[in-house]
Amino acid sequence: MKRVVIVGMGFGGLRAARALAGKGLEVVLLDRQNYHLFQPLLYQVATAALEQESIAYPIRTMARRWRGTRFRLCEVTGADLEGRRVVTTDGAVDYDYLMLAAGCVTNFFGMESIERHAYDLKELDHAVDLRNRLFCSLELAAEEPAPERRRMLLTFVVVGGGPTGVEFAGALAELVRYLVPADYAELRGDVIRILLIEAGERLLPDLPKELQAYALDRLEEMGVEVLLATRVIGAEPGLVLLQDGTKIGAHTLFWAAGTCAVPLAAALNLPKANGGRIAVQPDLTVAGHPEVFVVGDMAYLEQAGQPLPMVAQVAMQGGEYAARAILKRERGEAVAPFSYWDKGIMAAIGRNAAVVYSFGIKLSGFFAWLVWLGLHIFYLIGFRNRLLVLLDWAYCYLFHERQIRLITRSGKESPCR
Amino acid sequence: MKRVVIVGMGFGGLRAARALAGKGLEVVLLDRQNYHLFQPLLYQVATAALEQESIAYPIRTMARRWRGTRFRLCEVTGADLEGRRVVTTDGAVDYDYLMLAAGCVTNFFGMESIERHAYDLKELDHAVDLRNRLFCSLELAAEEPAPERRRMLLTFVVVGGGPTGVEFAGALAELVRYLVPADYAELRGDVIRILLIEAGERLLPDLPKELQAYALDRLEEMGVEVLLATRVIGAEPGLVLLQDGTKIGAHTLFWAAGTCAVPLAAALNLPKANGGRIAVQPDLTVAGHPEVFVVGDMAYLEQAGQPLPMVAQVAMQGGEYAARAILKRERGEAVAPFSYWDKGIMAAIGRNAAVVYSFGIKLSGFFAWLVWLGLHIFYLIGFRNRLLVLLDWAYCYLFHERQIRLITRSGKESPCR
Repeated sequence: MKRVVIVGMGFGGLRAARALAGKGLEVVLLDRQNYHLFQPLLYQVATAALEQESIAYPIRTMARRWRGTRFRLCEVTGADLEGRRVVTTDGAVDYDYLMLAAGCVTNFFGMESIERHAYDLKELDHAVDLRNRLFCSLELAAEEPAPERRRMLLTFVVVGGGPTGVEFAGALAELVRYLVPADYAELRGDVIRILLIEAGERLLPDLPKELQAYALDRLEEMGVEVLLATRVIGAEPGLVLLQDGTKIGAHTLFWAAGTCAVPLAAALNLPKANGGRIAVQPDLTVAGHPEVFVVGDMAYLEQAGQPLPMVAQVAMQGGEYAARAILKRERGEAVAPFSYWDKGIMAAIGRNAAVVYSFGIKLSGFFAWLVWLGLHIFYLIGFRNRLLVLLDWAYCYLFHERQIRLITRSGKESPCR
Repeated sequence: MKRVVIVGMGFGGLRAARALAGKGLEVVLLDRQNYHLFQPLLYQVATAALEQESIAYPIRTMARRWRGTRFRLCEVTGADLEGRRVVTTDGAVDYDYLMLAAGCVTNFFGMESIERHAYDLKELDHAVDLRNRLFCSLELAAEEPAPERRRMLLTFVVVGGGPTGVEFAGALAELVRYLVPADYAELRGDVIRILLIEAGERLLPDLPKELQAYALDRLEEMGVEVLLATRVIGAEPGLVLLQDGTKIGAHTLFWAAGTCAVPLAAALNLPKANGGRIAVQPDLTVAGHPEVFVVGDMAYLEQAGQPLPMVAQVAMQGGEYAARAILKRERGEAVAPFSYWDKGIMAAIGRNAAVVYSFGIKLSGFFAWLVWLGLHIFYLIGFRNRLLVLLDWAYCYLFHERQIRLITRSGKESPCR
């Protein structure tokens, strides 16, 4: 029986595994986590709207229903493409087909000071770290007598005007708006600053101008200070440095200004494009290795002169395409090139406020927000997660309450000091 | 305005704070966590039945309703009882009344090898660590070719036949029974051993003999090997050492065989009793310091010739008593000694199985299990937590599913290797 090894159980790997199951192939799933993570909602874990457990789903529970599939918890560190085997922290695994779908990590563009001091949001633990940091900032500020240090503790800098930066800034503004007056009497006279800094000329660059303007207006209405055409070039403890020489005193720096392929991509002797992504053929294989597919954020492919975006939809469609391509190849059928079907893009800004751009239709406001809610629930894995997220959202919406605001791990590595 | 400082927001501190709020005193709550933790359900977090967020409740959200109360996130490291001030990681805090309610930590009885290798269950992070360990053991075993090492990975040793040890062993047995056949095809031929080791002659020493026998029978039925009159004296990686020289190969050692007062008790120049607990007067104050109360697990007091047990009920009643005593003292009224009203004791063993001993009534089986469920829901703080726990339990009960079995933090400090 031929063996397909899938590296990474994100959106791409998951769709591929599902499509390959029960089709007479042996499918081996490799991931360094034992769960699939619904990354688009990480920012809600970071802002205490959702518990971490509700956006993750055990891989083995999914694989239970997939005949011929097994899972191994390990990290893939390299591959011998000629010998058709991947190298993992737990030994080598041979393959007949390989699907690389390990996603991306945050790109700090070589700025070490930012990498050292900034928070990012790619993994579940990142969200918990950031949540701990936010609530520690408030606790520290509540006890801080020196006005300058207090201002620094209450300044939150978000870098990157893409969906992650916009959604996080909006969620943080809402958190602060309702929570601080209720629970932090000590901070009632203070101004809490949330800065959203974007190097480009506008927020949400992939959206039409009206929706960009709507997002900007809403964020500013919610108290977020948006700085466009502004570049962050470094950080020190409690300080964010801008290219024009300005220094912003800020205890928390969240970096959502770029992504690049996971380190595994660099370990493979394959042609790379922008952000270390692996340049693939129109059928998502790598040149000279028709048995090696790369899907999702790890792959670089242009369509209609534009590189495919690093979004969940590309990964899902790529995973499904690659699975079908393998099955066709096995049956001796020809495989047409991958064609990405863009279903649209969206971002939530806050309560009753989102933007959706799909098939030329532009939506903003309450209805867009409902669409955003519905689609996120739909794409979540598992009935339990869907129910939990719905309840959490209803709870937040009705009671303006963020009860999950726990500062964990403060015993071992206190994020407060 | 006189100031009451409460150290620790467990069951005792919480009840005291609630009783003191809005009574014309300044109440300062100090805790090194920003949440109240419902410790009796920690073992369910460790066995992936509940998410960590559902058994914790933010202190500030409670304090919001308590007039005259404020919270500070800090660790109390000592006190100057003559000068009436506590020393914290965040400076000194003066008091007129002090209530020490910081609880207990695990007692390893000076056995460093056990302290180094064993897991315990006093804090939220402990539960997550233990959960990570359990699921890593299964993952490692699934990939392990050597039979002996495989057996070691699949052996779980629980030390301590009190409620925590019994409840954890039962929950683990149930987890393994339903989950492994469904999700770990690799382990279908293996025996998973759960050993419950108790130094005394019986489990649940505070219960009547019939209930002890019931618990033992049920656990054995569920596949738990119960070793009574057996003493664990040391541990090495993958090995548990018994007093009779036996070595048990086991990857996971959970220690629930003893508690002692938190280190803060040792830092105070006050008379100590068993387990480092502070010996208190019949009115829960310390000799010579009528303004210093000690409640809950930190305090040692005998009633009817027996020391008060280290259970939630004693802490709750002690906290309420101490609060009332302070209010009476302020009004110049006399204070009667503390009298513990024992409402009973109970332990859940598994699905439809628990033991309850209350006011001389002995219950076991399904009805006891319902009582256990109802009381735990009742004592949980917050509507959201109650709802979540109910849903989680219904989900586990109906679907035999443990979806929360995430291995977290494996990126930074992998519990797998």
